[in-house]
Amino acid sequence: MIDPRVASGLRDLLPSQAIPRERLLAKFREVFARFGYLPIETPHIERVEVLTGKGAGSDEVLRQIFDVTNKGGTPGELALRFDLTVPLARFIARHVEQLGTPFKRYAIGAVFRGERPAKGRFREFTQCDFDTVGSESVVADAEAVQVVHDALTAAGVPPFTVSLNDRRVLDGLLDVLGIGDRKAAVLRALDKLAKAGREAVAAELGHAEGAGLSADKAERVLVFAEQGKGPGERVLAFAAETLGANATAAAGIANLRATLDLLDAGGVAPERMRLDLGLARGLDYYTGLVLETTVNGFERMGSVASGGRYDNLASLFTSRRLPGVGASIGLDRLLAVLEEAGALAATSATAPVLVAQFPGVEPTVPVRLASRLRGAGIGAEVFADPIQVGKQMGYGSARGHRLAVIVGPDEVERRAFNLRDLATRAERKGLAWDAVVDEVRAALSGGVATP
Amino acid sequence: MIDPRVASGLRDLLPSQAIPRERLLAKFREVFARFGYLPIETPHIERVEVLTGKGAGSDEVLRQIFDVTNKGGTPGELALRFDLTVPLARFIARHVEQLGTPFKRYAIGAVFRGERPAKGRFREFTQCDFDTVGSESVVADAEAVQVVHDALTAAGVPPFTVSLNDRRVLDGLLDVLGIGDRKAAVLRALDKLAKAGREAVAAELGHAEGAGLSADKAERVLVFAEQGKGPGERVLAFAAETLGANATAAAGIANLRATLDLLDAGGVAPERMRLDLGLARGLDYYTGLVLETTVNGFERMGSVASGGRYDNLASLFTSRRLPGVGASIGLDRLLAVLEEAGALAATSATAPVLVAQFPGVEPTVPVRLASRLRGAGIGAEVFADPIQVGKQMGYGSARGHRLAVIVGPDEVERRAFNLRDLATRAERKGLAWDAVVDEVRAALSGGVATP
Repeated sequence: MIDPRVASGLRDLLPSQAIPRERLLAKFREVFARFGYLPIETPHIERVEVLTGKGAGSDEVLRQIFDVTNKGGTPGELALRFDLTVPLARFIARHVEQLGTPFKRYAIGAVFRGERPAKGRFREFTQCDFDTVGSESVVADAEAVQVVHDALTAAGVPPFTVSLNDRRVLDGLLDVLGIGDRKAAVLRALDKLAKAGREAVAAELGHAEGAGLSADKAERVLVFAEQGKGPGERVLAFAAETLGANATAAAGIANLRATLDLLDAGGVAPERMRLDLGLARGLDYYTGLVLETTVNGFERMGSVASGGRYDNLASLFTSRRLPGVGASIGLDRLLAVLEEAGALAATSATAPVLVAQFPGVEPTVPVRLASRLRGAGIGAEVFADPIQVGKQMGYGSARGHRLAVIVGPDEVERRAFNLRDLATRAERKGLAWDAVVDEVRAALSGGVATP
Repeated sequence: MIDPRVASGLRDLLPSQAIPRERLLAKFREVFARFGYLPIETPHIERVEVLTGKGAGSDEVLRQIFDVTNKGGTPGELALRFDLTVPLARFIARHVEQLGTPFKRYAIGAVFRGERPAKGRFREFTQCDFDTVGSESVVADAEAVQVVHDALTAAGVPPFTVSLNDRRVLDGLLDVLGIGDRKAAVLRALDKLAKAGREAVAAELGHAEGAGLSADKAERVLVFAEQGKGPGERVLAFAAETLGANATAAAGIANLRATLDLLDAGGVAPERMRLDLGLARGLDYYTGLVLETTVNGFERMGSVASGGRYDNLASLFTSRRLPGVGASIGLDRLLAVLEEAGALAATSATAPVLVAQFPGVEPTVPVRLASRLRGAGIGAEVFADPIQVGKQMGYGSARGHRLAVIVGPDEVERRAFNLRDLATRAERKGLAWDAVVDEVRAALSGGVATP
């Protein structure tokens, strides 16, 4: 016998997990499409050169790449993608002449990272990305935030908060403090503020192997990040007062103001948004807007949707400058948060009606009734075997079917069926076959006990 | 610069390809769910032992496996799945105690085979599988056929034909001819009848390195296969007359008869079905029903949906006997056939309405109108940049948007918009913002020129 386990860091998804997953994905696709984003697909396997091209990924990510080798193929040529952004860069460089710009795409797919397995960390997970490529407009910036908002709202995610910043505000701060040459180290340290706390970040900002700032400058960076958090109006006023004289920062502040105005026009409730002027988002390629999203009360579980604006997506693959803005919803983390929040409906059924197969009754009878229900758009499963009806009801209850349609030998003669509510066990008897769609529909909305 | 090409045998899907793909998948999911099949997911990466376990795949498939190695991992331990059936076997062995039987699952996902690249052959492709595990009922057999039928019909596939057989009919024939020991070679040869023709198959049946049959017996096998093709009633009568005295064949014939009765009860048109008593389907594990599906007039492109019944799915992984029946829709081949048949709607738009961004008009204006449309369920894309409006209209026409909403500076004052039909160029002017949902909805159903 072969052990049916999966490899370390990988997992099976049972129906109780896969059903809410599919529901979320269907909502995300619907919202992406409603904004005019177009689906594309790229292979799971890419040429290694594409994935490891200078700057394409952080060293940490590159150490986590899965190599892929065809039997008889040359090792080291192919690997599994570790995100959907690098493949987008390659894709757009390859097809931009045909597709034109602006090009708005979404992509949903599995990505692979050989991370050390840990609770909630998997080596294969799903990203839901959308981007507008070829526009520098603040309308595209605001839309990226709005799509995250609308997608999470449509999916029924409990109250969440999108944190926004513009990298140019931080650039302006470093400029004013004369520490622009320490940018990478400062941003890396700042990104840890929420998780690691003030003291650790202050130490990293001051340490010679970190940013190497003086105690005074480290303090000013920290105070700026701490005070620059909160509702739009207040934080924008604070930023303008502190950094308004710096042209770079002023451009970032104006962009954030315009973004908030556009979100308001798009019907986004202000309490879903906050500014966070210390937000950097580690990735080097963000140049303007940055955003991340946490579910209220579950901030410790991290961001469920993140993104931002980049100046030049595909510079490794084409000399054509392609600015863009977009975000990625992390499906697996979002589901983990929803589960933790008790916001996942517990169901393992996809069809609400179970049609029993009564022993001794011609199986065409239940098949015919189920077919009528499906024809009316009502999911109906015929139990596969004519076993004892009580066991069939047990199956239906355990699976989460709501109603059972039962036709025994007596009913066949009268062309009748019994309709049982699997939760309350209420049952109505002797209903006419010809009324099966109406009866079931009524029972699905009102229950069986109602006369 | 890094070359943005994909590796040999792989491909990018542009929106014009990905949009019809997503539509088909949405339909398939809907139909699978309507019959009570539940989604599951298994990792793309499996342990090599699971994939190569004795009998798990044909030698040819095993030669095509892609090995996967984590940096620092041990080569030879992991590989990409080459189908969704072996992962199902492992999955069900691992989780059957928790899930119970019958267990009806569907799975849609990418599979990988390092085949020699050729036209229409890709190294990564998508399968849509559904199976009922843990039942031996003919109701489950017939349902497998009906789900293929209903899924293809719901997806708008042009007229197609499902060919059915029961392996036991062929077993009975070989039994009667006293050549049961040559079964594998005979079935392998017979499977080539449609493609290679009678002469080649006769040669293979007679050849010592093939089945090694006498000329007389080879002829009887061929005649049986040729005459056993066509509408249910006639072929069933032929089979009963020829093989009805053989118990194995009789069981197969009875099962086919019951299957056709159940399909009729399920509302499947008889002309969508035919029996093909020579149909074997190469895979060794089928034991009863076998089915394959071709689109009428495109038979040369091969089967778009195939499957059958197996006695024991998971015998490599568990001592529990798990019979089942199911089928797999080959999405990529189906799309290739639909493209060849001219049955794919040519569109690259997901949102029907383009809302222009007029130069000099506050961008909150188009964003607000688009938001109203989306709130009413109408897809609306705001053009990202306030460039010349004629260029925005060109973008909309090229993408396949149907209508454009345009608000210039004059309209802003009067809180009005113009509505243009991007195909006919008809335009209505001065419509009220408050009526945008009604006006657009009317134009989407009736066109703009209609007063």
